[in-house]
Amino acid sequence: MFRLTVKHIDVETGGMPIVALNETFTKKNDLHMMDRVMLKTAHNKKIVAAIDTSEEMIAPSEIGLFEEVWKKIDTKDGDIVEVEPIGKPISIKFIRKKMDKEELVHDEINQIIQDLVEDKLTDVEMAAFVSACYMNGLSLSETEHLTRAIVDSGGRLNIKKKPILDKHCIGGVPGNRTTMVLVPIITSLGLTMPKTSSRAITSPAGTADTMEALCNVNFSIKELEEIVNRVNGCIVWGGAINLAAADDKLIKIRHPLSLDPEGMMMASILAKKIAVGATHIIFDLPIGEDAKVHYLGEARHLEREFKNLADKFKLNIKTVVTDGNEPIGRGIGPNLEARDVLWLLKGDKKSPMDLREKGIFLAGELLELAGKAPSGTGRQIAEKQLKSGAAYKQMQKIIEAQGGNPNIKPDDIPVGEYTIDYDAERYGTINVLSNTAISKIARTAGAPADKEAGIYLYKRYGEKVKQGEKIFTVYSKSERNIERVVQIIKELNPVVIK
Amino acid sequence: MFRLTVKHIDVETGGMPIVALNETFTKKNDLHMMDRVMLKTAHNKKIVAAIDTSEEMIAPSEIGLFEEVWKKIDTKDGDIVEVEPIGKPISIKFIRKKMDKEELVHDEINQIIQDLVEDKLTDVEMAAFVSACYMNGLSLSETEHLTRAIVDSGGRLNIKKKPILDKHCIGGVPGNRTTMVLVPIITSLGLTMPKTSSRAITSPAGTADTMEALCNVNFSIKELEEIVNRVNGCIVWGGAINLAAADDKLIKIRHPLSLDPEGMMMASILAKKIAVGATHIIFDLPIGEDAKVHYLGEARHLEREFKNLADKFKLNIKTVVTDGNEPIGRGIGPNLEARDVLWLLKGDKKSPMDLREKGIFLAGELLELAGKAPSGTGRQIAEKQLKSGAAYKQMQKIIEAQGGNPNIKPDDIPVGEYTIDYDAERYGTINVLSNTAISKIARTAGAPADKEAGIYLYKRYGEKVKQGEKIFTVYSKSERNIERVVQIIKELNPVVIK
Repeated sequence: MFRLTVKHIDVETGGMPIVALNETFTKKNDLHMMDRVMLKTAHNKKIVAAIDTSEEMIAPSEIGLFEEVWKKIDTKDGDIVEVEPIGKPISIKFIRKKMDKEELVHDEINQIIQDLVEDKLTDVEMAAFVSACYMNGLSLSETEHLTRAIVDSGGRLNIKKKPILDKHCIGGVPGNRTTMVLVPIITSLGLTMPKTSSRAITSPAGTADTMEALCNVNFSIKELEEIVNRVNGCIVWGGAINLAAADDKLIKIRHPLSLDPEGMMMASILAKKIAVGATHIIFDLPIGEDAKVHYLGEARHLEREFKNLADKFKLNIKTVVTDGNEPIGRGIGPNLEARDVLWLLKGDKKSPMDLREKGIFLAGELLELAGKAPSGTGRQIAEKQLKSGAAYKQMQKIIEAQGGNPNIKPDDIPVGEYTIDYDAERYGTINVLSNTAISKIARTAGAPADKEAGIYLYKRYGEKVKQGEKIFTVYSKSERNIERVVQIIKELNPVVIK
Repeated sequence: MFRLTVKHIDVETGGMPIVALNETFTKKNDLHMMDRVMLKTAHNKKIVAAIDTSEEMIAPSEIGLFEEVWKKIDTKDGDIVEVEPIGKPISIKFIRKKMDKEELVHDEINQIIQDLVEDKLTDVEMAAFVSACYMNGLSLSETEHLTRAIVDSGGRLNIKKKPILDKHCIGGVPGNRTTMVLVPIITSLGLTMPKTSSRAITSPAGTADTMEALCNVNFSIKELEEIVNRVNGCIVWGGAINLAAADDKLIKIRHPLSLDPEGMMMASILAKKIAVGATHIIFDLPIGEDAKVHYLGEARHLEREFKNLADKFKLNIKTVVTDGNEPIGRGIGPNLEARDVLWLLKGDKKSPMDLREKGIFLAGELLELAGKAPSGTGRQIAEKQLKSGAAYKQMQKIIEAQGGNPNIKPDDIPVGEYTIDYDAERYGTINVLSNTAISKIARTAGAPADKEAGIYLYKRYGEKVKQGEKIFTVYSKSERNIERVVQIIKELNPVVIK
């Protein structure tokens, strides 16, 4: 045990709490980078932290407390704290076991996830775990334990009325706002669908970003339960609810390594469905060159794996394979997509027919899966809800329940004042309209942070165009961003006419 | 490209240079933790750094420069720097390839090691690489490329006179100072042996720590060449010479994960031998419960692997398997071990016979390997050098060449003033004398930082003891450390008498 003098370091480190010790001091005392120590203050406040070393900044008699540690143990510069070296958490052994190609049991996976959530593991240790899961794969029972552990790491929505319907799309397709069509249709039939969605990570808009153009999407679990009990459904941002705390921490490691171990990805998706109490789930797997799934074989493989995992949790799921080769809808970007959705629900002539068709299809499949429509009739029932205006009325209720204006007109939703048109350079048929390029252009215009930024598509794959005819318009609130768009369009060559 | 205002953060991060950006700003601009950016100052100084994010500390218009970045680009608070997002280094692809179980070619491994040495890879990325090497193993040709890349990452010793003899011991045995017996014997015969050794990492003393009790062990490559040309050999600290720069950085990742991928370990060892120009090397593999190698099968496996790798570099090697079940020599700790070695070389009656025997054995094997003694006669030649005093005279020359006092008397080497004896609790035969416990006690006493700290063993495995007879004495310069030793002896139970 050492007694060291506190020195505040005004820097957040994120993840596991870190303290800095003098390098020579650590060598003398057989301490190493990333070893753990337990700190104890005079007021008996305790915290476990990992060691970082510094020769110049920290004297041998000092301990540097980074912001998170500093805040938690409530000391001041010059205070004395007791510092006791302690062993590594036992989950390190289990990570090592996974690296050694052994299968982990329930308690072992649970311990790793618990230590992760409690910030007891360093980034390097978690990188080893994610690498091991990627390289050695996760067995079905490991994936099951991981799913359970992720569910247990966060809160759960408690809705009494069953069945609870849900949908998930393995993304990669711009403008694919089917959730905002599906939820109004399903809930207009009196069925329950508490939908949590993500924000954009690498795309121009996530469903949560688009819904936010119309109303609030950040709610607590309690507020959400109240909304769903009142209007049967919701469309909110999952990240605000802390439904699967471990998941965010896993993603922080997976992203920089671009690693997406299949079992970890499935556990992450299913855990969020279990956390909202879902009983019937439809999985949309768009296939396309720029989508996340490239071949039918991949989709079929994922379908089997999801089915096996869902069986473990007694969930009813159905997988549908859809076309992910080009954007869906005409608007790309939060406000532009929200406009599309409202036109569609209101039956306006500007309604994007491909999005309408996909929404009806998914709703029909989901109704049949939940036993709410005889086989082959789901589609008709869904379309009727749209045509009758029942789905639109239901969307108004949801928008209102989420604190928005239910009477907002699609044409009143603002779009960026700076624009640039992309015109056909010659006569022909559109042969390529690249998802990746469209996403990149919309993001360069400012989406999703600039809600008014994005793209509106006049023409689609396979359509004939005359020379000089408009193919799409880019919108932005910032003139400078539009200048950048001009530049990037030259580099990307987003449209090929044949 | 962004223009941001510099804010100095007075913290060293170690490894890859890090800059802090505002979290909301990064989200808006599609930047993520650990993405790379290129910084450019008004004076056109450039540096590549990885992104860390912070919401409170850094404003959206600011960029926080941690100490290493701050020093390198020479700006001041309030200066404007240009910040350009750039791609990840190509070596990330190769790391990913290794994770995907593909074999890496020469250029790929070279790029990874080059990026590592140039601080272009984050800890998380390197953890993924080390994990991949551990889990998927390294092929012989990958290990060869890795060895070459590590050699190329540092300096090389240029000694004209061949052959150059060397030795390596895969450690784990306290007191095992054979290098300090071997080098004087070999070089007293006019042969060349420029020996670099390590300091203690988890043991009470490394050879460099023990030699330092007698003379300086930190030299530049130039100084080393001069010493070896003058007195045929040296015993110095390898860490001071920058012989294999990449190796230190790999160890920084391997240590916290306790990962020692076999190919990486072999590459690390052989690279250091190649860097000093070694042509004939003897490998000592002690086998024992607490040693690094536990079974004969493991030793035979390592022997084959080392042989195959050495063949690629046209090195002559021989592996010998020795007993690693108990400490070698009587002193444990820098000064106590140095005393043992001098008594041995001078032929004093206090000479530890087991260390003498092992030194003669290894010297004989090495002489025969290098063709300097007919088969079966190496041992005799080596022993003669000891008995005649030639080896001691040679050691005096080396000590002098390394700036020490050649006439130092072993009994004048100071040992700690605070002591505690461990006495036999009953009559019987010593059945266990644990390497691990002995190491832990010597380190608790203060070794290796306190050179006078350590243990002197009076009795060994298999010896008979009377009740109350001294088995060992612990020495320390610090009374408080001796108090801790009393505590730890109770916990460890280092000796079992049957």
